[in-house]
Amino acid sequence: MKFWSSINKGLTPYIPGEQPQDKKYIKLNTNENPYPPSPRVLEAIKSETSADVRLYPDPNAIQLKETLAEYYKTSADCVFVGNGSDEVLAFCFPAFFDPTDTVSFPEITYSFYPIYADLFRISYKTIPMEKDFSFKPGNFPDGMKGILLANPNAPTGIAIGLEAIEDLLQRLPDTLVIVDEAYVDFGAQSAISLVDRYDNLLVIHTFSKSRSMAGLRVGYAIGNSSLIEGLNRVMNSFYSYTLDRIAQKAAIAAIQDWEYTRRICDKVIKTRESVREELTSMGFRVLPSSTNFLFICHEDYAGRELFLELKKGGILVRHFQQPGIENWLRVSIGTDDEMGFFIEKLKTLVV
Amino acid sequence: MKFWSSINKGLTPYIPGEQPQDKKYIKLNTNENPYPPSPRVLEAIKSETSADVRLYPDPNAIQLKETLAEYYKTSADCVFVGNGSDEVLAFCFPAFFDPTDTVSFPEITYSFYPIYADLFRISYKTIPMEKDFSFKPGNFPDGMKGILLANPNAPTGIAIGLEAIEDLLQRLPDTLVIVDEAYVDFGAQSAISLVDRYDNLLVIHTFSKSRSMAGLRVGYAIGNSSLIEGLNRVMNSFYSYTLDRIAQKAAIAAIQDWEYTRRICDKVIKTRESVREELTSMGFRVLPSSTNFLFICHEDYAGRELFLELKKGGILVRHFQQPGIENWLRVSIGTDDEMGFFIEKLKTLVV
Repeated sequence: MKFWSSINKGLTPYIPGEQPQDKKYIKLNTNENPYPPSPRVLEAIKSETSADVRLYPDPNAIQLKETLAEYYKTSADCVFVGNGSDEVLAFCFPAFFDPTDTVSFPEITYSFYPIYADLFRISYKTIPMEKDFSFKPGNFPDGMKGILLANPNAPTGIAIGLEAIEDLLQRLPDTLVIVDEAYVDFGAQSAISLVDRYDNLLVIHTFSKSRSMAGLRVGYAIGNSSLIEGLNRVMNSFYSYTLDRIAQKAAIAAIQDWEYTRRICDKVIKTRESVREELTSMGFRVLPSSTNFLFICHEDYAGRELFLELKKGGILVRHFQQPGIENWLRVSIGTDDEMGFFIEKLKTLVV
Repeated sequence: MKFWSSINKGLTPYIPGEQPQDKKYIKLNTNENPYPPSPRVLEAIKSETSADVRLYPDPNAIQLKETLAEYYKTSADCVFVGNGSDEVLAFCFPAFFDPTDTVSFPEITYSFYPIYADLFRISYKTIPMEKDFSFKPGNFPDGMKGILLANPNAPTGIAIGLEAIEDLLQRLPDTLVIVDEAYVDFGAQSAISLVDRYDNLLVIHTFSKSRSMAGLRVGYAIGNSSLIEGLNRVMNSFYSYTLDRIAQKAAIAAIQDWEYTRRICDKVIKTRESVREELTSMGFRVLPSSTNFLFICHEDYAGRELFLELKKGGILVRHFQQPGIENWLRVSIGTDDEMGFFIEKLKTLVV
């Protein structure tokens, strides 16, 4: 640790969900899509696999931005792209917040938000959830430089309606509201429709979930051009070629095959709802989910133990040690077969 | 700019070399390798193009780290990998330096170093070059938290011998010396051989130059395990999946075909030396290069004008506005044909 910075010594880094290499698990622990990406994505990768790999990618990713802009009926200078939505979120911190600022987010949400804040020495204030794990944006206080709001929220899976977000944007015009919509395609309303009207709104999406491209690392943000320029300035002070040639082309193909994305998301939603019913009938408390996962707990069985037993049985789910949710499990929605296997296994544990 | 942080307002972001989309140029402006990557790299990409793109990559990139460790006869916990060496360099700043620290680098070097320092609010002290653009590491002062040393240097192309670097490591045991060896395979000695003996040495490499993989964004660092752990902590506080599945597999294939890399580097070196002779005979001052580019100037012709005339003629080279080198051009080494075309064009401008 001799050469570590003092900030580094104080960090509590994120722990990604297990990616064990020892044996084949049913992976319900990192919210990957159980279905492959669009065949057009795989074709795009193949056609980009050429000697041109020797050349830098377009640092402005202009084709990808224009494809996204066309889809969302906005202009390319209102689109930022990055190496996964995590990178886009990380860039937001130095782009918009100073160490003298305070940002706010719900008490139970994506666990990376406080880590970004710590890395960039920005204070944060967490806002408690309601008893049912829902969250009222009306509880965010005045005077924050920024708000981070995952909608639907993770790991709860609960979505907030668009009116509540619009109320927030109107009530706090000097607060930048960053809406992280990683899971939006599984049942929530996107705030992208509000971007034209609110200069304090930035919406962040990923290709990792609904578009089955977690392995390729692409995310994007939609906001007014001043916010996007702010992100570009930070990116070009960090490194300029965040998105490789293949990821750019694959992402373009994914956007162009929206119909496919819609179809696989609908399949996931259908599976989710039937698994939800089954779990409820087994005595689990299951939060209402607008995502590709379910957040569940059983009053008679400890979350940690169920997690370990499932792992022994070849099924990986996610368990968080965080106080308040230590008895809960986050279960990604797999194929019908995978979920059938999960339910069968669970039935041997929860009798 | 309403929502920009104060640090963002003060940034002077990096400007990447042009990647014009309007017409086909002979691109001698971003130091790309003129030869394609190893056929094994392209095969690796194709075999990784599958439904598994839906799955997150291994965040620890353990196969890639083990391949690199085997090649360098070290252990995987002495290897860090990132999305291009720029990302690895960027992570070094929060990992090892605090805003109260000062770092140092040569006055003329990779222009991203002062930008990283500004982004992370770290002071820096630049050290003048000799009259011939060489640099004496003996001129670095005591008391710096870190030193950034590109070897060979960019944009000069000049390399420093390993003894001078070892002297520096011995003289300043409390200073972290980061040796950026992006161009080392074109004729310099790597300091990786010193990593075992000096805990204050971190060596950074890229796959973008000698391995013809600029389009795929892979870089790495070799250092003692405490330095690598420091980098991992910062990475996992920024985002955990920096390297996509395809880039990881492609990089493994590139390392395994070192013989191919050596062969294309030797071709570049041969071309470089013949272009150097030609330019010298045309009255150009040409710095001794251990890289895949030449840094040249002509006392009768302004660098900016030559740059613009070459561009009109369909040839892109790099011109920097930085005081002290504003009359110089950095010319990447292309194929023999491309360089023949460049020389012919130059002969019409320099009479």
